[in-house]
Amino acid sequence: MPRLKDFIDTTFFTKDELMYIIKLSLALKKCVKNGYFPQLLKHKTLGMVFEQSSTRTRISFETAMEQLGGHAQYLAPGQIQLGGHENIEDSARVMSRLLDIVMARVNRHETVENFAKYATIPVINAMSNYNHPTQELGDVITMIEHLPPGKKLEDCKVTFVGDATQVCVSLGFITTKMGMKFVQFGPEGYQIPEDRQKILADNCKVSGGSFSITEDADEALKDADFVYTDVWYGLYDDERSTEDCLKIFYPKYQVTDELIKKAAPHAKFMHCLPASRGMEVVDEVLDADYSIAIDESENRLTAMRGLLVYFTPPTMVNKDAAKKAKKELKSLLKKNKK
Amino acid sequence: MPRLKDFIDTTFFTKDELMYIIKLSLALKKCVKNGYFPQLLKHKTLGMVFEQSSTRTRISFETAMEQLGGHAQYLAPGQIQLGGHENIEDSARVMSRLLDIVMARVNRHETVENFAKYATIPVINAMSNYNHPTQELGDVITMIEHLPPGKKLEDCKVTFVGDATQVCVSLGFITTKMGMKFVQFGPEGYQIPEDRQKILADNCKVSGGSFSITEDADEALKDADFVYTDVWYGLYDDERSTEDCLKIFYPKYQVTDELIKKAAPHAKFMHCLPASRGMEVVDEVLDADYSIAIDESENRLTAMRGLLVYFTPPTMVNKDAAKKAKKELKSLLKKNKK
Amino acid sequence: MPRLKDFIDTTFFTKDELMYIIKLSLALKKCVKNGYFPQLLKHKTLGMVFEQSSTRTRISFETAMEQLGGHAQYLAPGQIQLGGHENIEDSARVMSRLLDIVMARVNRHETVENFAKYATIPVINAMSNYNHPTQELGDVITMIEHLPPGKKLEDCKVTFVGDATQVCVSLGFITTKMGMKFVQFGPEGYQIPEDRQKILADNCKVSGGSFSITEDADEALKDADFVYTDVWYGLYDDERSTEDCLKIFYPKYQVTDELIKKAAPHAKFMHCLPASRGMEVVDEVLDADYSIAIDESENRLTAMRGLLVYFTPPTMVNKDAAKKAKKELKSLLKKNKK
Repeated sequence: MPRLKDFIDTTFFTKDELMYIIKLSLALKKCVKNGYFPQLLKHKTLGMVFEQSSTRTRISFETAMEQLGGHAQYLAPGQIQLGGHENIEDSARVMSRLLDIVMARVNRHETVENFAKYATIPVINAMSNYNHPTQELGDVITMIEHLPPGKKLEDCKVTFVGDATQVCVSLGFITTKMGMKFVQFGPEGYQIPEDRQKILADNCKVSGGSFSITEDADEALKDADFVYTDVWYGLYDDERSTEDCLKIFYPKYQVTDELIKKAAPHAKFMHCLPASRGMEVVDEVLDADYSIAIDESENRLTAMRGLLVYFTPPTMVNKDAAKKAKKELKSLLKKNKK
Repeated sequence: MPRLKDFIDTTFFTKDELMYIIKLSLALKKCVKNGYFPQLLKHKTLGMVFEQSSTRTRISFETAMEQLGGHAQYLAPGQIQLGGHENIEDSARVMSRLLDIVMARVNRHETVENFAKYATIPVINAMSNYNHPTQELGDVITMIEHLPPGKKLEDCKVTFVGDATQVCVSLGFITTKMGMKFVQFGPEGYQIPEDRQKILADNCKVSGGSFSITEDADEALKDADFVYTDVWYGLYDDERSTEDCLKIFYPKYQVTDELIKKAAPHAKFMHCLPASRGMEVVDEVLDADYSIAIDESENRLTAMRGLLVYFTPPTMVNKDAAKKAKKELKSLLKKNKK
Repeated sequence: MPRLKDFIDTTFFTKDELMYIIKLSLALKKCVKNGYFPQLLKHKTLGMVFEQSSTRTRISFETAMEQLGGHAQYLAPGQIQLGGHENIEDSARVMSRLLDIVMARVNRHETVENFAKYATIPVINAMSNYNHPTQELGDVITMIEHLPPGKKLEDCKVTFVGDATQVCVSLGFITTKMGMKFVQFGPEGYQIPEDRQKILADNCKVSGGSFSITEDADEALKDADFVYTDVWYGLYDDERSTEDCLKIFYPKYQVTDELIKKAAPHAKFMHCLPASRGMEVVDEVLDADYSIAIDESENRLTAMRGLLVYFTPPTMVNKDAAKKAKKELKSLLKKNKK
């Protein structure tokens, strides 16, 4: 199977491919942490298309590009309009001629799919209303760095508490892909939809992993190695009121120290952030020693480095033609000085 | 005649000067395409002032700077206000001390003229309500790359269909400057104004080119090597309604395959983009083999590279003074470590 | 005393420390002006958080980073929200993992204080409603470059005319820290508040400087070496009406040529800019030979270079570990090609 051009959905990749990107990310992190910055993206430009604002994603991508010798252009909400004066197809075609790779954070998943279809350069999905695949890689990296003593990734149980956001669904995608045990502990009506459950089931068949969805706290948390949560307010562009959030999820699905106690004694707490403190998680959990949420946010950057190196096309060098072009340029520049 | 500091209007330049920049652009393109990135703009910073949003122009300039070793700062609409808390003259003076070169996309041509007058660094006009000179160069580059077999640039006929936008006027400026045949095929009331026609006529006197304006499709398209169009909605900040657009230009001035058939058999279709598909141009034309609109958009980047290399002032190096300053800096940094 | 991580307030630094940063800034300026760009910030990324727009500060910081080999990310008002979906503490913790250093222009001084408290990376205050410490350094640099013949910095008198803005207060902070004579010439009700006066007095005790506040023009301007003013409209997010400005400050506190004549014959005029011409200062002053306002704005960049080099943490290099990581990366990249 030829390598895919785009990173839209981890479902389209094998466990081996994803593990390769993860290893690449970890190797790059080790390089940078020890003061060596491999300039693998020299002269490369990333276009960052945001239909909604984001702190973590934008900063991570931009820092990753610059550390590896490249550059990132921030195309903020309102500064570029996908499907405004120009249709997405034309924007994709044009941007493919002016950039080397694009990431897009979109309101509707179809937008990034369409963009990737018409773009001739790679497109990375930096979160849609459907999934959050760069977060997935960062999360697995974080789990690998915080494995319980003596356990392999495949042995671990991950419990997501609360609303079936795209982060929850994505966590299900990646953990079942990796062969882990995944549980969503969430109320009926706010559980992973059936079409996504089908993907989790397919993943498990290949990987030997498992998944379940439950409203039973004890069952959900039992022996969990990682407890994960996300905000209750839903999508940025269609937020639930605080009142509604509390009515649906509070207090049963709030991650408290008491809830964490139901998990394995070595359990770690994870959160994609931003967190609404006092809502889906309380201070004593987010600030606890067992909270690895800040490490997790750093690993967004870790994952970006690996993804960018993996997906950015290499520079095509034609030495003879380049030499000739250089000579031509020099001769022109000489004329300019006169 | 001393070289002009700014690139505001191609009218102020000779054909030879413009052809030099075009050759420089083509040489730089050949370098980059073959994997050699000449770092001619190392340590240089471009300020990009936008009074209105733009995808192509912004991305092109930023990519051009970065590929050539420099950096571009995006000063978005609302983030910098020309003539707000500070008058344009003072902004120009201050920015001249903090940047190496500036490009400005402005709502009113006087703004970029004024800015350039008070700036001591070069200013590039990245489109005003009057003209679009960076587009002009990109368009000539595209025509050169797509010359009909056996024809020179000067032999070609270029027909613009539709509204006398600043892109239409600019196309008239550059084609008559180059000695080509230029025709606007557009309805009365939406034809190139007389003061601009005077410039076209002056150009033709020098270059041997010609221009005409007509409402006759057959006459306009006959033997045309390039057929060009632009949107009908007018200026971004004062758009015509779709209803008005249709009333004025539809169906006579819509570029269809049938209309293209009136031109030379080898005719190419051009559009500065963004396009309103189904309005000034239909899908079958924009997506046809003879459409070179996407190549044309890539040549915005091609032209930017040449323009930036041509206009950015070289770094003044004083080796002895630099050596002394380096020594002083080293000695200070040593103290810092203690 | 250990070196402070952050640059929030010059009050926390000794005169010697500030003079060191100033000397560093001047040495870096000399390097750049002579064509040598020391790449001291290679691979470093600055986050620029703006709660309100700014031309000078943003351009200066971004140019400084790029000239010294680093990169600056512009986090515009609205693009990052301190204390929005995420509290400041969490934003500070997360950004500390993704960036090397941060600057923040904030509406309320507590915001930058809080951010610095929770950030593990250095934070530079790029103006708050309380003070403007990067301006302070740029101003001293400008005065050093324009010292009256035969005079030392400590011998100079600086008179601020008009409203006790944060720039006025900051000018008081730095001049008294340096041991200079500082005077605010401003109307009752718009004079430096008592708590800030206390800091000026403390500074003078250490430095041998002096300060006074007066409504007497002759006394204020007498023998002044530098005459400084700032806008009358107050804070950006809570502007005074033009009518109110005039009622309070006009004509007594408008800087005219006549007023400047009361100062020393060699007196220079300074303004942090932007200026409201015809309000706090008239054209004949701002455009006079004795006006050094544009030099002053360039020295924002001069100060930024020094501050960034001083505060950005050096890259921690572990050669053995880096070598090992590089080898690991190479072996992974080789696999990728197959």
